[in-house]
Amino acid sequence: MHPLRFTTQSSSNGMLERHFTVGDIPGVLWSPASGTDRAPLVLMGHGGGAHKTHPAMAGRAHLLVTGCGFHVAVIDAPGHGDRPRTAQDEQEIAELRKAQEAGEPEGPIVVRYNARLAELAVPEWQATLDALQQLPEIGAEEPIGYVGIGLGTAVGVPLVAIEPRITAAVFVSTWPDVLLENAQQITVPVEFAMQWDDERIPREAGLALFDAFASKEKTLHANAGTHMELPRFEADSAVGFLARHLGRSVTALG
Amino acid sequence: MHPLRFTTQSSSNGMLERHFTVGDIPGVLWSPASGTDRAPLVLMGHGGGAHKTHPAMAGRAHLLVTGCGFHVAVIDAPGHGDRPRTAQDEQEIAELRKAQEAGEPEGPIVVRYNARLAELAVPEWQATLDALQQLPEIGAEEPIGYVGIGLGTAVGVPLVAIEPRITAAVFVSTWPDVLLENAQQITVPVEFAMQWDDERIPREAGLALFDAFASKEKTLHANAGTHMELPRFEADSAVGFLARHLGRSVTALG
Repeated sequence: MHPLRFTTQSSSNGMLERHFTVGDIPGVLWSPASGTDRAPLVLMGHGGGAHKTHPAMAGRAHLLVTGCGFHVAVIDAPGHGDRPRTAQDEQEIAELRKAQEAGEPEGPIVVRYNARLAELAVPEWQATLDALQQLPEIGAEEPIGYVGIGLGTAVGVPLVAIEPRITAAVFVSTWPDVLLENAQQITVPVEFAMQWDDERIPREAGLALFDAFASKEKTLHANAGTHMELPRFEADSAVGFLARHLGRSVTALG
Repeated sequence: MHPLRFTTQSSSNGMLERHFTVGDIPGVLWSPASGTDRAPLVLMGHGGGAHKTHPAMAGRAHLLVTGCGFHVAVIDAPGHGDRPRTAQDEQEIAELRKAQEAGEPEGPIVVRYNARLAELAVPEWQATLDALQQLPEIGAEEPIGYVGIGLGTAVGVPLVAIEPRITAAVFVSTWPDVLLENAQQITVPVEFAMQWDDERIPREAGLALFDAFASKEKTLHANAGTHMELPRFEADSAVGFLARHLGRSVTALG
């Protein structure tokens, strides 16, 4: 087992930000300014083409840390952020750009690429979680949640399906095609957000993924708007959902 | 125009509760304990077989009044609460009970009955709103929202479709069949909640109603569970939605 090694540390905006590595996986851990209080942990998976400190991650982390006192960890997905791209990554990305430029369907490429990244990323998340739980401010007893966006959902659905330590999950829409079987294994509370007028992912496919979750408590949030127009208030909603299920109250919403 | 006459007044739980009549329509107005500060107004429509002070109304009013400082008004629907039932009401209710006991589809009866009640209730709501806006603590300038549950949605969709004073609406699922045309006239922000496993109202019908709203900002909340299992957190969500659109911040959630 690889231990977690902190590499840099800074504070701003009421948060402690510590970069770390677990083996060759680079990650970031955001914590309340005090840094040392034991608190629930939220793992977040970034979107395709983004990285661990992308504003969509840092912004949500700020709400979760300052609003609920949670710790929040994000790791770079394979081929993303500070991680090297393999020849296969380059090839998939080139094909994706070609399809987008030609106005051809990107679905088959994204589904295949995300599925391959998820296969690599699920054991990486488990190793990272093992290492995070060795930290005194997290430990093995605190509840753990997951938030995924796009690729982070493609990784998160198979992760939550097999990882009993994660007890609540927020997923923001992704290509659902290969995830239905994993979704049927998920029984923890789920909040699933999709865009009603998504021009990339068919509405019926999003509804089918929501339908597939075996969770007794699951909520679909469908908002008017295209793929990139997820409303900001969904980030607040995710905070309320995680506060409810990880056992904290929300003291302030950023 | 009938003026609003207050009949009884009491205070509890941080709220002032005043019963009133507008002509022969009985209603209740809940306000912050001070009672006199000008603030936005939320109209709420109760469910079929319920009445103006049903816990589903009083509970939501408490969240809206103590959380946002809003005024909240509910009137009894025709044939409900303190209002007399006509022979036609009695006949519809008898038919509904018969269908329910025989395990036959209640949809056609509920749709027809709700549509008839909505025809009566829409002008009643407009007269009530005229009278409420004469009160110094409401006035004609404050923004107005609407919250409807079941029958309250069957009344609210045609009301919001024609009433420009209402600028944001929360609807909880109802039989949507006759409402699609009215929904297409609605352009204000809408939050629409339905039950994913509703045993009475077909899922596709609920999704079709959400799809029909012409609002640029609309959010569907679909929760796992049967018709009567709407989660309590949807009431909190409605408070956040109305706070956002009527221009108040939420200071505390009950």
